[in-house]
Amino acid sequence: MRNEVTIHSGVSDNVYEMATDEGPAHDGERTVPSPLAYFATAMVACLMTQLRAFSKRLDVPLNDVSLVGRYHWQGTMVGRNPYETEPIGFDLDIELDTDAQLDDQKKLIDAAKKGCFIEQTLGQSNNIGHRLKIGDDWIDV
Amino acid sequence: MRNEVTIHSGVSDNVYEMATDEGPAHDGERTVPSPLAYFATAMVACLMTQLRAFSKRLDVPLNDVSLVGRYHWQGTMVGRNPYETEPIGFDLDIELDTDAQLDDQKKLIDAAKKGCFIEQTLGQSNNIGHRLKIGDDWIDV
Repeated sequence: MRNEVTIHSGVSDNVYEMATDEGPAHDGERTVPSPLAYFATAMVACLMTQLRAFSKRLDVPLNDVSLVGRYHWQGTMVGRNPYETEPIGFDLDIELDTDAQLDDQKKLIDAAKKGCFIEQTLGQSNNIGHRLKIGDDWIDV
Repeated sequence: MRNEVTIHSGVSDNVYEMATDEGPAHDGERTVPSPLAYFATAMVACLMTQLRAFSKRLDVPLNDVSLVGRYHWQGTMVGRNPYETEPIGFDLDIELDTDAQLDDQKKLIDAAKKGCFIEQTLGQSNNIGHRLKIGDDWIDV
């Protein structure tokens, strides 16, 4: 079940070898991460990157950023057919290490969502939740 | 711009460390692949995996599978704001090493699309094209 994947960028000369595998439950040998592990990494890292990149542009100081993402899919078996899948929802909990006011933190998160290629790709039809930690509370953003 | 990402699976005890970085153009140091490289890997590998998994279930013999994916996004700068992004389209060109009839090949691809978590997540609002190589020709599937 291992796939050998070579990634070429459209904007640089970078080439990456990024193999995937499955676990024994799916007849794989778990030599490297699964496609869904790559997907989960891409989505959480895309938003983290834009939060950091846009903090400079928007002049919202940011010492550090930490995200927890939860990804929820469902597979349904109908009769003897292979299973069909659907996304249930994706939740991203954001902690910003910053002295910025709440309004500025929200402005930064909003810009990062719009600048994140992956969120913009998924966001048009998927249920993506975002929460921001303020003190000991979480607020929807 | 480097993100340290730890991935936990909901169905196994696997834990993967999957860091991302950016190139110098985005103030990164290119120590590891970018979030978009992870995304591109996930999408192409997800379909490859399901093609192989479902070939057994559907009894469509498959010696090998090879895919080329093209991913196209656009970023737009408005005034002094950070850029906003949107997906343009995704194209997957599929080559199956198989003796199966065309109808069976199409049946397999159709099942793999429906079984691929990532295609199902993107496919609801995105423009995803699929072509299958038959002899020297490419046909839409």
